[in-house]
Amino acid sequence: MEAGIVAIGSELLGSDRVDTNSLELTRSLRAFGFELRFKSVVGDSIDDIAAELLRLAGRVDLVVVTGGLGPTSDDVTREAIARAFDKELVLHEQIVGDMERRFAKAALKMPEVNRRQALVPEDARWIHNERGTAPGLQLEHGDCTLFFFPGVPHELEGMIASSLRPWLEARGGNTGVEERRLKVACLAESRVEEMIAPAYAEFGRERITVLAKPGEIEIRASVVGRPVERTEELRRMHARLSSLLGQAVFSADGSQSLEAVVGDLLVAASATVSTAESCTGGLVAERLTRVSGSSAYFAGGAVTYADRLKREILGVAAASIEQHGSVSEVVALEMAVGAIERFGTDYALALTGVAGPDGGSEEKPVGTVHIALCGPGGTTAHYKGRFPGPRERVRQMASQWALDLLRKSLRSALCECETGTS
Amino acid sequence: MEAGIVAIGSELLGSDRVDTNSLELTRSLRAFGFELRFKSVVGDSIDDIAAELLRLAGRVDLVVVTGGLGPTSDDVTREAIARAFDKELVLHEQIVGDMERRFAKAALKMPEVNRRQALVPEDARWIHNERGTAPGLQLEHGDCTLFFFPGVPHELEGMIASSLRPWLEARGGNTGVEERRLKVACLAESRVEEMIAPAYAEFGRERITVLAKPGEIEIRASVVGRPVERTEELRRMHARLSSLLGQAVFSADGSQSLEAVVGDLLVAASATVSTAESCTGGLVAERLTRVSGSSAYFAGGAVTYADRLKREILGVAAASIEQHGSVSEVVALEMAVGAIERFGTDYALALTGVAGPDGGSEEKPVGTVHIALCGPGGTTAHYKGRFPGPRERVRQMASQWALDLLRKSLRSALCECETGTS
Repeated sequence: MEAGIVAIGSELLGSDRVDTNSLELTRSLRAFGFELRFKSVVGDSIDDIAAELLRLAGRVDLVVVTGGLGPTSDDVTREAIARAFDKELVLHEQIVGDMERRFAKAALKMPEVNRRQALVPEDARWIHNERGTAPGLQLEHGDCTLFFFPGVPHELEGMIASSLRPWLEARGGNTGVEERRLKVACLAESRVEEMIAPAYAEFGRERITVLAKPGEIEIRASVVGRPVERTEELRRMHARLSSLLGQAVFSADGSQSLEAVVGDLLVAASATVSTAESCTGGLVAERLTRVSGSSAYFAGGAVTYADRLKREILGVAAASIEQHGSVSEVVALEMAVGAIERFGTDYALALTGVAGPDGGSEEKPVGTVHIALCGPGGTTAHYKGRFPGPRERVRQMASQWALDLLRKSLRSALCECETGTS
Repeated sequence: MEAGIVAIGSELLGSDRVDTNSLELTRSLRAFGFELRFKSVVGDSIDDIAAELLRLAGRVDLVVVTGGLGPTSDDVTREAIARAFDKELVLHEQIVGDMERRFAKAALKMPEVNRRQALVPEDARWIHNERGTAPGLQLEHGDCTLFFFPGVPHELEGMIASSLRPWLEARGGNTGVEERRLKVACLAESRVEEMIAPAYAEFGRERITVLAKPGEIEIRASVVGRPVERTEELRRMHARLSSLLGQAVFSADGSQSLEAVVGDLLVAASATVSTAESCTGGLVAERLTRVSGSSAYFAGGAVTYADRLKREILGVAAASIEQHGSVSEVVALEMAVGAIERFGTDYALALTGVAGPDGGSEEKPVGTVHIALCGPGGTTAHYKGRFPGPRERVRQMASQWALDLLRKSLRSALCECETGTS
């Protein structure tokens, strides 16, 4: 079963509001196996709305429309239904009575304009609105069912529960969509595509979605079917995707942020961490402390933007800065070692780089970032990144690579431990 | 001139993502007098996209399409154009060369899949993408012009500036919408509404929009008209709003972030700043260093999450923590003084508080934050905030109040200076 959603309202065609009602509607549709094929926004024009209703009624099994049922003259959904399907609008006295009682309850007289809300296209069913004056409408046109609900989120939610979901359940039956997600860090989107290509071939490309943001990719598997079968199929898809992506997966259910995963690993390892940041200006510390409870493993950090402070606070050797420049592997490592000593933690992450847009050179272009990790027993790791894009993106990606470096190190330390004790 | 916007991507038909690219596009359309009539979302289906393109091409003068230009096989916008308008796809070697150079710059080999991005429908013009591999496309169909841009916001923004806006400027008429904005910090939305009520009465409520986010409110004035008249009317509106809001306005043209304004004031005062953060975990330092060129005034900072580090790094007295607790005015002030001494700056901002969700008490509930500012000559200022909401919001609001405290202090210091020398 396929569906379309239309949001009506000229205010949704401006430059600062988006239709978010459709998200709630989509959740209900998917839960009962309806696939959303189209979503659109139309202004308060009778012609435009009528054309859109006719178009969708010819293409999908269900159309859900929100908005334009209010009492004012720019609420023209009723007139558009009449125009599209060639129906008369009939005044329902029962709706008028309901509305009058509603106003009376609040000790108000119903304004004359509200009578418009009692107009119902012939052959349409009207649906009581518990939370407001505008009744909903339901109409059949050929093989398509159309629902019309108010655009006020609170009223819409009430009507989804009281009338849409029961209808979906009766029509959609047992079949629905279920999803599972996983997230990987620090891989290019095209690389992820290559890695999961076998899963596309096995399970079908349309069931796997790849969503990328800087330094992080979410892979989403979805299956339409009956509850037991779809859960089993999803389990197989998820296992296959996990094995294809291997260690790059940092969140097996897609729910956790990278900083939260790092936090869990630090707790598991009973280890603490500190940070020493230059180009990221505190972003790595800020991310680590986004996690509630992070005081259990995060002691503190230094933001040493001025070279003077790299020396004074972190004990970086003046000679290292002079010889290699402050954006260098040597300085990053000395910053990490300095943080361990200064803050007394088991691990320390250090970052120094050129976030841009200025400050780049031929040898060290904008986006060059040295990331160093220092761990127990003086172990160190280093990664040199070259991140493209504007300042904000360079910093975001650098923080991502830093946290992932720590994640991998903690993982292998924990594995060794387990192996060692078994 | 009328326009339609289409966002392509099955992920935008799910239950957790809405198309927000259209907002930026709408701003550009409106600025040049184009009226947006339709906005829609279509999944990664060649048939559905092709049908939508044909429908809109027959109804409006301009169609702007985002998404589906990536390298993977679910990026099918190119194929949909070919289907809709009956065009062949032709491989452009110049685009391949551009992409290969782009990958080579990052020391990578271009994956084979990216070659698809060099396919251009015959008769279409391709548009260079400065910020990514996917070129844009421009096509004429009857009286309609269609633009195709990547869905990645950063890439889209670049292409709006480089190719869409010049085209709009050339085609659009004289009448358009013009906007002016201003931003205020650290006021409640209802308070702002009260302050600007006279402007609503004078200029009309529908021409003034108030957009709130935590600790920051944008006020937007917009006028429809011909260039000279609308600019003059906007100037009057803007002057009135500015005078009603007074010192709370931190960005008179709404373009600058609070951290950028603080940066400009620091430059004007030839002053430097450092930070000492506990509950915000580095957010204030991170925000200050988001600004390119911030190394001119930001020296560094400490994130002292553990009380031990508040003592060791910032010199906070153990007795102060014991007597008043680490979330207290006394400790915040000692942290600020410690930062000035440790980092050798003119100003220092310190924050200590309970970000939550745990750690609150009756006396110091979640959301309690002490903010201290230490300035030249040992001057200090203190603000005790009680910020409602979840952890992220508490931290964001705390950083906002801290930066605004510094902004006001710098402003009055600069004013005194000016008065003193005149």
